[in-house]
Amino acid sequence: MTHTLYRQKLEQAGRILGELGIDAWLIYVRETALNPDPVTELLWDFAAIWPAAFVITADGRRIATGVVHDAPTFEASGLFTEVRPFEKVPDETLPALLQRLDPQNIALNYSLGEVAADGLSHGLFLNLQRMLAGTPYPQRFTSAETLIGLLRQRKLPEELALLKEAARTAGEILDRFSAAVHTGMSETEMAELFLGQVRARGIETSWDAGHCPNMNAGPHTGRGHLGPLPEVTLQPGDVLNVDFGVKQNGFCSDQQRVWYALRPGETEPPESVMAPFRAVAGAIQAGFAALRPGVEGWRVDAAARDFLTAAGYPEYLHALGHNVGRYAHDGGVAMLCPRWPSYGERAYGRLEPGQLLTIELGVWTEHGYIGLEEEALVTASGAEWFWPPQTEPILIASRQ
Amino acid sequence: MTHTLYRQKLEQAGRILGELGIDAWLIYVRETALNPDPVTELLWDFAAIWPAAFVITADGRRIATGVVHDAPTFEASGLFTEVRPFEKVPDETLPALLQRLDPQNIALNYSLGEVAADGLSHGLFLNLQRMLAGTPYPQRFTSAETLIGLLRQRKLPEELALLKEAARTAGEILDRFSAAVHTGMSETEMAELFLGQVRARGIETSWDAGHCPNMNAGPHTGRGHLGPLPEVTLQPGDVLNVDFGVKQNGFCSDQQRVWYALRPGETEPPESVMAPFRAVAGAIQAGFAALRPGVEGWRVDAAARDFLTAAGYPEYLHALGHNVGRYAHDGGVAMLCPRWPSYGERAYGRLEPGQLLTIELGVWTEHGYIGLEEEALVTASGAEWFWPPQTEPILIASRQ
Repeated sequence: MTHTLYRQKLEQAGRILGELGIDAWLIYVRETALNPDPVTELLWDFAAIWPAAFVITADGRRIATGVVHDAPTFEASGLFTEVRPFEKVPDETLPALLQRLDPQNIALNYSLGEVAADGLSHGLFLNLQRMLAGTPYPQRFTSAETLIGLLRQRKLPEELALLKEAARTAGEILDRFSAAVHTGMSETEMAELFLGQVRARGIETSWDAGHCPNMNAGPHTGRGHLGPLPEVTLQPGDVLNVDFGVKQNGFCSDQQRVWYALRPGETEPPESVMAPFRAVAGAIQAGFAALRPGVEGWRVDAAARDFLTAAGYPEYLHALGHNVGRYAHDGGVAMLCPRWPSYGERAYGRLEPGQLLTIELGVWTEHGYIGLEEEALVTASGAEWFWPPQTEPILIASRQ
Repeated sequence: MTHTLYRQKLEQAGRILGELGIDAWLIYVRETALNPDPVTELLWDFAAIWPAAFVITADGRRIATGVVHDAPTFEASGLFTEVRPFEKVPDETLPALLQRLDPQNIALNYSLGEVAADGLSHGLFLNLQRMLAGTPYPQRFTSAETLIGLLRQRKLPEELALLKEAARTAGEILDRFSAAVHTGMSETEMAELFLGQVRARGIETSWDAGHCPNMNAGPHTGRGHLGPLPEVTLQPGDVLNVDFGVKQNGFCSDQQRVWYALRPGETEPPESVMAPFRAVAGAIQAGFAALRPGVEGWRVDAAARDFLTAAGYPEYLHALGHNVGRYAHDGGVAMLCPRWPSYGERAYGRLEPGQLLTIELGVWTEHGYIGLEEEALVTASGAEWFWPPQTEPILIASRQ
């Protein structure tokens, strides 16, 4: 199944090349176990020990060239239309290969703004320049940023099925956590309730386990950036916010949920929790309502941002949402970000069917951080929730 | 303990900068979970979500600058003499920081020849150029290759203790494998004997588990590059070669061992196994005998290579040995490689005390691949085996 998916993604890459008017995509790597290019995870699951180059063309060729030690691995994958081994260095094969194909433009994996499209190291770039000196090809290099962004964000049905599985697993873990959590627990103990389940299932967290789950228990938390803290315990009257996701079969989930720890005698959260919760959940719904194909992502961010500030809360200092896929932050051409310089062109990317996006924001209150994060899928006609969004705080019973 | 080690490595980096006459080392990263710089693993264990820069100076300063969301993590690590947060982009802090320090040369993590020193992506390099346009600093960039190579290859006592632990664990796993292996097993089944032990101990393999252990059972193997094959089974009269290592507490081992499966009635391997085995083990001893500080690495390679060819066997088509550390192939300025263009300057690096190096080579025979790989430590006065080298084939009893 995974192998079929690699094949489908390579074919999708060829189609996107054609759409963008780029003749060839050159992926150049070495010792991928030590310094991987993150895009290759979409395309194959083997490692290259020595320098290796992969050329995917708009006319459907998928050519690999690697040292004689690596070439059998590439051949055995069955993913390539041609495998050219070299004895010692790619200088033996790559210049001639490009000469034969003579692409008028060649996409390389570098990007100023998008980390997921920036897997080519500067040293490998210099190597390509050296190897191709005297040929016209260094002048034809262009960034593969858009190509990679589209390849990442256009989820195929099989990718969506795997992403749904990850969300389902995370949902089960969240439900079990809700049943087990109680006041008096430290952030560290609560995080362990998640991590124990992750280990027991033999899966991974969506991002580094030191910060996944991210925990904000009450107002005196480390604000998530320090990871869960042993000295911060959940108290009656506290809001608990958790940012959590699992990586399962190579695909991630990413959600935030909010709990409220009832004080003795309380049966529901006070208005000082419910008012900001409604603002946050409402802003997320406002964003979701603006989500549809063809819209520039910043407009969705603005819909949520405007809702929140109109409700009297300060704007959040981050983007409304990002693509989810092989990574929790999966890159992509279009995402839901404001038109700030740090987000560059991505704010203006037009949304497409098949994008799985988070919608996330929050506000700080005297009870702690009220932050939600939902996953929504852009469809041909609009959008649908990928997983039911949270509509009210989950209650943690008073222990008295 | 690990935290102390990070501090020690950062201080070691400052000393090496002084030794090399480099004023500052600039490590520039972003979303390290997605696209890590392999060198940071030596220096700290936190992740940076947004772009972040770390400046280490020859005069002992260790300055981190990161977005307000990341800066508390850097601060909490206790590893830095100064942490400067920025609101949105490093343009707010980094140019001013460099202006204040005014380093005359600035090492960056790019390298044409050394993957372990090539963690700066081309896009991040372009970002630095853009951010520092109009300042003198882009003209002062230089490769951190030598700095990183020395930092990797000069193992501190605490690193050597952890490396020895990894070698000890691998030794135990190899011993258990020797007790369990028998003829008729497939390469896949034999690999599983290793991987089961790795999983049971909660550790990792030194390189990707699809190729660790690497298996060569008899003459009809996939020659290791395809990973263990289910259709290749160990037969009486076969040589079995295994390349294996474990990663434990962040440090790796890397060894090759050779077994011989006795034929019915045999009590020892035939001369057609023993003669090449002696040549291989002898060549490794010849390399070891040449191993001492101050020697250029190629001379050690040549000592082993010449021994092997003088014994009438073809030369091996790779380097004699590499540094072992955080990775099985750990980079370094000096290694044991021939003066081939693909190895560049590394062939001429002078060996130093504290280097942990493999010595590895082999020959193909009618019985299969006879390949050994040992680990040796360069000391102040010469070298010592890090783990006892193999002196004869391990025998697998005939099942009749």
